[in-house]
Amino acid sequence: MSTSPYPVNGGRLWETLHSLAEIGATPAGGVARVALTDEDRAGRDQFVAWVQEVGCSVHVDQMGNVFARREGTDPLRAPVVVGSHLDSQPTGGKYDGAYGVMVGLEVLRVLHDHDVSTAAPIEVVSWTNEEGARFPPAMIGSGVYAGAFSLNEGLAAPGVDGTTLGGELARIGYAGDEPCGAPDGAGRRPIGHYIEPHIEQGPILEAAEVTLGTVTGVQGIRWYDVLIEGQSAHAGSTPMEHRADAMVAAARLVCEADEIAARRAPEGRATVGTLSAGAGSRNTVAGSVSLTVDLRHPDAAELEAMHDELLAFADGPAFGPQSPSGRSIPRPQITPIWYSPPIVFDPVVVDAVRAGATAAGFEPVDITSGAGHDACYVSMVAPTGMLFIPCADGLSHNEAESILPQHARAGAQATLNAVLSLAD
Amino acid sequence: MSTSPYPVNGGRLWETLHSLAEIGATPAGGVARVALTDEDRAGRDQFVAWVQEVGCSVHVDQMGNVFARREGTDPLRAPVVVGSHLDSQPTGGKYDGAYGVMVGLEVLRVLHDHDVSTAAPIEVVSWTNEEGARFPPAMIGSGVYAGAFSLNEGLAAPGVDGTTLGGELARIGYAGDEPCGAPDGAGRRPIGHYIEPHIEQGPILEAAEVTLGTVTGVQGIRWYDVLIEGQSAHAGSTPMEHRADAMVAAARLVCEADEIAARRAPEGRATVGTLSAGAGSRNTVAGSVSLTVDLRHPDAAELEAMHDELLAFADGPAFGPQSPSGRSIPRPQITPIWYSPPIVFDPVVVDAVRAGATAAGFEPVDITSGAGHDACYVSMVAPTGMLFIPCADGLSHNEAESILPQHARAGAQATLNAVLSLAD
Repeated sequence: MSTSPYPVNGGRLWETLHSLAEIGATPAGGVARVALTDEDRAGRDQFVAWVQEVGCSVHVDQMGNVFARREGTDPLRAPVVVGSHLDSQPTGGKYDGAYGVMVGLEVLRVLHDHDVSTAAPIEVVSWTNEEGARFPPAMIGSGVYAGAFSLNEGLAAPGVDGTTLGGELARIGYAGDEPCGAPDGAGRRPIGHYIEPHIEQGPILEAAEVTLGTVTGVQGIRWYDVLIEGQSAHAGSTPMEHRADAMVAAARLVCEADEIAARRAPEGRATVGTLSAGAGSRNTVAGSVSLTVDLRHPDAAELEAMHDELLAFADGPAFGPQSPSGRSIPRPQITPIWYSPPIVFDPVVVDAVRAGATAAGFEPVDITSGAGHDACYVSMVAPTGMLFIPCADGLSHNEAESILPQHARAGAQATLNAVLSLAD
Repeated sequence: MSTSPYPVNGGRLWETLHSLAEIGATPAGGVARVALTDEDRAGRDQFVAWVQEVGCSVHVDQMGNVFARREGTDPLRAPVVVGSHLDSQPTGGKYDGAYGVMVGLEVLRVLHDHDVSTAAPIEVVSWTNEEGARFPPAMIGSGVYAGAFSLNEGLAAPGVDGTTLGGELARIGYAGDEPCGAPDGAGRRPIGHYIEPHIEQGPILEAAEVTLGTVTGVQGIRWYDVLIEGQSAHAGSTPMEHRADAMVAAARLVCEADEIAARRAPEGRATVGTLSAGAGSRNTVAGSVSLTVDLRHPDAAELEAMHDELLAFADGPAFGPQSPSGRSIPRPQITPIWYSPPIVFDPVVVDAVRAGATAAGFEPVDITSGAGHDACYVSMVAPTGMLFIPCADGLSHNEAESILPQHARAGAQATLNAVLSLAD
């Protein structure tokens, strides 16, 4: 299957993944290795021990991001970096994050086994607090690295349990001294190219029966809060033409948001995940409804068009006085609360990942990430790409998270191939 | 304005209504005279005292329904009965129910003032526990009278406070001994004709600037519980074509229910008053949504057609696999849970009410009741009609319930006119 000169050891990778998953293992078969807990420390210690076994130096920065470094032959080259994160959700799975770090470890092991020299150094990174479950927001470690947050913001991040990120980092012994995220980037550890292998956390690859996805970028996201204020009224004695039914208004908006995305399938996405009509009563017209809208698209112009269409619909004839009956549908008040622009990954890294997958004997498909990853922040300051492998039923952030060993091996081989080409 | 031989005394009626409203008065200007509380007893006692002042005999049946009787000249005639209820919602208004009983009292007073003889006896009734707020369901007193419930069911009705209806009836001294609701009706107090004056509890008369409504019947009601089971999924990583979004399905059903009623305006009505999507999350596709549907129409065939259209829509192409994108919208599971058939009131009584309103100098409009009333049950066993007067903003079951004195007087005059014609 593989035409690579240096085959990865799929059995070893699988065994290592599951050995790591014993740290913080839950009875239901998942992992609870929440950021900067004792379990996270144990996971980090294990990672450090493994990379030291293959001759790497270990470097910890002020945010606790851990870099394992294998030197190259050209002292002027910045490293090719592979990585992801070792922390998990409180009831997380075995592969979200851990897969990317363990693939990096397998890359180091193969290079070590064959005593391969590379021009550029190779590093494997584990970013601190990707999940944000204990210290919101998510991806603080890579965010500080890339300058999206200041170091002080990162260290002061309050934990949901009354701790601080910086305090817990010191407690577990991972408050390093290497600079992280200086404003001009001068003190930051350099990254020549960054590849993050990850489980897809979605259903696309599995449904298409494809083993590897070349991630070309990350969707842009727009979030909205919507309030619809109508008039509560008796369901029996209030004719339709005397109503201001907030539920009907909400339903019209939900249908339209759905259509806005559906006519941009497969890339456009719209979700109304929450809708509240208060206590309500089955024989009372709803007086007030609040809901949320989540719009996504990998293309900024398309996402902007979706935004415009949503607002235009809310301003349009679906609301307000209706003809011919004269009834009224209350108009939604839409408040945009967040915009995360789309990210387009570096073409050199994307091409290297695609070629690496092809060289490994697979036919990768291009895919856009719908979830956020450390790669999003890293892409702000270094050429970045990602590689996805399928996960069962697209399930993630769940103890039932599941992947296949052959997919795990394929992703590792593709990553190794890409690393070798970028480090050459 | 009035061409009636015996004018009602509008000032007296208004004063009596507000004197009654002091019993159970709330700080916010409403009334809390919940069934079989001490306040309800005080209201009953006041009513009894007032009717005894005008020479009526008082009769209390086993359900505590109170009848004030003014004899007629023809011993073979069954009485013309006017009435409604004296109990209120916990935060109710001054007029819901009380208006109909006080109109009956004003009728008795006018007949007494002028020493009028009628062929048929005249009775004024106050039915027990119309609101059902303390002893669900609503309208138990008239329901037992009409045989919709057995006497035992009525007396055993559990209170929300751990009491029973029968126990509380005895406690306040209104457990009468006249038969109520014998299966064959043999023991039930006879009713020749029944007229229930009531506030509209809806916006129609006020919006049309009409003083009196001749109620021709009561809407039929169909209630449904709806469950939609889709699949929760990540809002970012799940393409539209891989979703089974329960919220979109719910929205489509809400829009269609609304349309089913809107195309039958002004008589058809549809309400989705409650919708629950569980805890939900703004970036998670809703996996499950439950909602309720309330359909109403005064015509049984039309209500049946609305029912059929709702079920056909749920079975149709709006749900299941969607083309051209191939995505799926989960199909609603609709469970009918209640059907209350439309009621058509007795044409003789309806005509008498209409003629009484016209003779009082008004131009009444025909109207259908959207709410349930004691008249619904009474119509099962006696010729029945109702008269509506406007209430401000259609507001009822609310301490802010409000009517105008001229409307109150008009309704009383129309009722007196109708009573005289039916009792002749």
